[in-house]
Amino acid sequence: MESTDLLSQTNYLFNTLFLLFSGALVMWMAAGFAMLEAGLVRSKNTTEILTKNILLYALACIMYQIIGFDIMYQDNDTAGFFPSIGFGINETAEGASQPGKVDFFFQVVFVATAMSIVSGAVAERMKLSSFLLFAVFLTAFIYPLEGYWTWGAGFLGASTEDGGLGFSDFAGSAIVHMAGAMAALAGVILLGPRKGRYSEKGVKPVPGANMPLVALGTFILWFGWLGFNGGSQLSFTGVADADAVANIFVNTNAAAAAGALLAYLLSLFIYGKADLTLIVNGALAGLVTITAAPDSPTASQAAMFGALGATCTFFAIKFFDQIKIDDPVGAISVHGVAGIVGVLLVPVTKDVSVLTQLAGLGVIAAWVFSASLLIWYLLKKTVGIRISSQDEYIGADISECGLEAYPEFISGRTSNML
Amino acid sequence: MESTDLLSQTNYLFNTLFLLFSGALVMWMAAGFAMLEAGLVRSKNTTEILTKNILLYALACIMYQIIGFDIMYQDNDTAGFFPSIGFGINETAEGASQPGKVDFFFQVVFVATAMSIVSGAVAERMKLSSFLLFAVFLTAFIYPLEGYWTWGAGFLGASTEDGGLGFSDFAGSAIVHMAGAMAALAGVILLGPRKGRYSEKGVKPVPGANMPLVALGTFILWFGWLGFNGGSQLSFTGVADADAVANIFVNTNAAAAAGALLAYLLSLFIYGKADLTLIVNGALAGLVTITAAPDSPTASQAAMFGALGATCTFFAIKFFDQIKIDDPVGAISVHGVAGIVGVLLVPVTKDVSVLTQLAGLGVIAAWVFSASLLIWYLLKKTVGIRISSQDEYIGADISECGLEAYPEFISGRTSNML
Amino acid sequence: MESTDLLSQTNYLFNTLFLLFSGALVMWMAAGFAMLEAGLVRSKNTTEILTKNILLYALACIMYQIIGFDIMYQDNDTAGFFPSIGFGINETAEGASQPGKVDFFFQVVFVATAMSIVSGAVAERMKLSSFLLFAVFLTAFIYPLEGYWTWGAGFLGASTEDGGLGFSDFAGSAIVHMAGAMAALAGVILLGPRKGRYSEKGVKPVPGANMPLVALGTFILWFGWLGFNGGSQLSFTGVADADAVANIFVNTNAAAAAGALLAYLLSLFIYGKADLTLIVNGALAGLVTITAAPDSPTASQAAMFGALGATCTFFAIKFFDQIKIDDPVGAISVHGVAGIVGVLLVPVTKDVSVLTQLAGLGVIAAWVFSASLLIWYLLKKTVGIRISSQDEYIGADISECGLEAYPEFISGRTSNML
Repeated sequence: MESTDLLSQTNYLFNTLFLLFSGALVMWMAAGFAMLEAGLVRSKNTTEILTKNILLYALACIMYQIIGFDIMYQDNDTAGFFPSIGFGINETAEGASQPGKVDFFFQVVFVATAMSIVSGAVAERMKLSSFLLFAVFLTAFIYPLEGYWTWGAGFLGASTEDGGLGFSDFAGSAIVHMAGAMAALAGVILLGPRKGRYSEKGVKPVPGANMPLVALGTFILWFGWLGFNGGSQLSFTGVADADAVANIFVNTNAAAAAGALLAYLLSLFIYGKADLTLIVNGALAGLVTITAAPDSPTASQAAMFGALGATCTFFAIKFFDQIKIDDPVGAISVHGVAGIVGVLLVPVTKDVSVLTQLAGLGVIAAWVFSASLLIWYLLKKTVGIRISSQDEYIGADISECGLEAYPEFISGRTSNML
Repeated sequence: MESTDLLSQTNYLFNTLFLLFSGALVMWMAAGFAMLEAGLVRSKNTTEILTKNILLYALACIMYQIIGFDIMYQDNDTAGFFPSIGFGINETAEGASQPGKVDFFFQVVFVATAMSIVSGAVAERMKLSSFLLFAVFLTAFIYPLEGYWTWGAGFLGASTEDGGLGFSDFAGSAIVHMAGAMAALAGVILLGPRKGRYSEKGVKPVPGANMPLVALGTFILWFGWLGFNGGSQLSFTGVADADAVANIFVNTNAAAAAGALLAYLLSLFIYGKADLTLIVNGALAGLVTITAAPDSPTASQAAMFGALGATCTFFAIKFFDQIKIDDPVGAISVHGVAGIVGVLLVPVTKDVSVLTQLAGLGVIAAWVFSASLLIWYLLKKTVGIRISSQDEYIGADISECGLEAYPEFISGRTSNML
Repeated sequence: MESTDLLSQTNYLFNTLFLLFSGALVMWMAAGFAMLEAGLVRSKNTTEILTKNILLYALACIMYQIIGFDIMYQDNDTAGFFPSIGFGINETAEGASQPGKVDFFFQVVFVATAMSIVSGAVAERMKLSSFLLFAVFLTAFIYPLEGYWTWGAGFLGASTEDGGLGFSDFAGSAIVHMAGAMAALAGVILLGPRKGRYSEKGVKPVPGANMPLVALGTFILWFGWLGFNGGSQLSFTGVADADAVANIFVNTNAAAAAGALLAYLLSLFIYGKADLTLIVNGALAGLVTITAAPDSPTASQAAMFGALGATCTFFAIKFFDQIKIDDPVGAISVHGVAGIVGVLLVPVTKDVSVLTQLAGLGVIAAWVFSASLLIWYLLKKTVGIRISSQDEYIGADISECGLEAYPEFISGRTSNML
């Protein structure tokens, strides 16, 4: 075999191995969201949120396979606005540096992540079937379209030489995370808060039923995020790629660590306690923040960025409760606010202007929020999006799934019944 | 270094890296089975099933190392029936394309998977020590022999040119999954159902104690299955391998997703609820189904195959209850029925006849079932296989392990006491 | 590209891929320790131990990034005693065989492992803030210094030709595990046992609240340990590396399996029950034992070494209770005793003397124990290290974190209240 052929084959193998195993780690994040959310809701709504997480992952995979991947990546114009529409996964292109299925596999687990973010925010009161209907639209159209705009070299992401805006979002602080948060926000606005959450007496705390699941979910996400950000290098064929991926692993980890510590310090100074739920949201906010540019900062910068994202998220969680946006797991703060912070920090380490980043954020937020609001609205007016008060009282586990999460453990706290 | 030597060394490294990390993912499936089963039994039998899962994995590894691997793979005749018998792991052969230990590591985690399947079906009433004695025979002899017949190039798996039948089972829908189910079925027949499960009033539901563990176990298995099917390509040295493994990852994921969705729809239309336990069994059935040929279908075919396997499994679960085969976790339906479906679907995408596939299924089922029945029978007549009624009433955790799973949580439902 | 350049680039990519994914598996071990410990404490101390595990991981990453990594590895003298002091992560050296960030990433997850070991031993009565202050010193100075002495080619680990002692500890039975145990032992001595644990009536059992978490944690550690030991080959560039890593995966798995089985047999013969907590500690002891030399034994030797380490650990757990060293999770026995056994077994398969191994053990133990004792002592005399009796009675979850782990499950056993 010629040295050139050998190089090309070796590159093909490295890319495939790297992206498949990175993608597997992102797939594993689905378990992280499921555990995190199952731990943060009350026991009477646990089976339902687990079911929702499994089904949304499954649905995202199928819808993206049928049409979403084509909209986002296949046969589109550079710097365009409207994608070409087609179905399925194209054959591997001649001379491609990895199988087309590898590209698909790595991307399909991303759309599932975006959808997972929505799940937590609408917990404890949304109809499962309506949620899944919404998931069809988000994973088949809403996400793929803005994905095309940026990662598919559409008008946001294409370089300025190619007629695009040059918006920069390496692994998806905006495209995946803020987008998920916007879809969630639209849903929460139409859905309303949980019964009894807000009253004249203020915000009633609703403690999650199972803290070990919260910690487990956080560790799963932290672990999987190495593949999420690392794999987003999309290529593993030379020294530059290896250096970039090494940077990404270190920075991703550092941002999460700094986010957790900052949230701990804030929690300690403000509340006098080490609040686990705030700390895990700090770690996750650190991860979301670094996602927009995990390759370019130094490790110290990554830690500072993570800490900054965690700080904004920390106060955002309080803020959303003040304006009565009821988000049981803090998903809108963690993925939305930290996502915005991350995108706006890109100019610190990359050659892109803050204005460009703001424009990209604005377009994505406007599109995802308004399209989602429309879908949620249509669902609300037709099949309805909220379970009945009676069902909310007894819990979605019985009403939606016919199955209690912990049928043998006697539950006796008033916190269970708002 | 010569280009040829470089290629050969690179191949060696790719194979090793690919198979070791794939094998690690399969090892991780042991945690998946443990969590799934621990969530599906009652709290009084949880410690015991966790203990059983750790010990069966450990025992499978040791027995396969001592003799099982040799029976299955070392120094055997092509297209033969009787294996050569020897012990331990041979030295790496001259000119081998990966270390011999890599072959062993990837295979040893498979035998543990086969044994894990048995564990759930006999839950809540079998003696731990008898179960482990059975595990010695399954992992040292019963599984390795049928493994040799197919994957060791014995009379089932050797190509017709080599004098074999040409039976095709890529990653083990029959060899691993149906085999595990057959061993379980034989045990359940001799063991009998749990006290009070079947009466004139019909089938008494016995809800699992911990749904988050069920969902976690499912996600672990889904994740690990990427390594189970992907690694079964057994080689990662050229473009064809990379393409195949990419196909496998996509197809494995698609089959699971479609299986989960199909089970959801069936559950919704038949029972009016989204039953989590049926949905996870749908996902797992999709995985078992695609395992017989995850490399050759298109992604759409994979989804359809997964949906078909899940449908058959869905009704099989009900059927086994009707004939009073008490399988607390549905393992016989998921691994047995979907395994058969998977093997029979191979001719759709590969050049093998349905008759050949039926013959392979028949031989493996007959061997594993009858050999297992014999061992279970001998155990029943000597040390006994069932715990006492009293122990079954108070739970295997106290009687077998002396340790409650959740000692602080008050359990007060009648479901706990059949 | 020249064949030589291609080889050098391929090596760079293999090393990076291998070490990053191995490191990710070690990072995942943080979840294993968190789950294991959360399952083994009482429900009233569960949120606190989860919080502690997340924060210690985060803190270890940040401190090691700031200074620990530099102390351990950068710009030090060969065979020296005092390290050079500096900050941050150096640029990748000219001609390096992988990015400097890769070295850092793989090492940073090790220091977190060492710190995780301490966490379990001091559970249920230590102040969270004092624990974290101790973590600063361990991860920034105590561990990096002894790490430099051995792995950084200081006076313990440098070869005798280079003027060192030639002490051999492949993946850290002493450097990571025994060191963690020594730091824990020093803390436990100054901290004292939990209220009511030891009285004239003997040792009062304090059952862990959640056995599924114990099993899950064990499986996570088992899985992650493949990366811990495998990655410690530190290089993946030729046939010899591939062979070594394959050996390591097989041996690590075999030692854990044999350790679990031995602990089962001991538990069965001595107590008549299959005690899950003893069995998981047997598996972990097997892992710790093989860690000192996972590359050189045969698979049979590895199994025997694992069994021996598990046996010593089994009796050590009882011994420490007899001398009233209260270690709620058995961490000192598992990591300390099995760590020593592992280091002393190295001469069986490697060319190093028992005396050298004893010397290395002595130096590391003396340093870590005395430095830790000093830090714990200073903390005790200043901020205090123990929560109040009242807080211990109501549980650290409320007093330290303001958050119950399972707020809805009624807890009614007297075991909850010693």
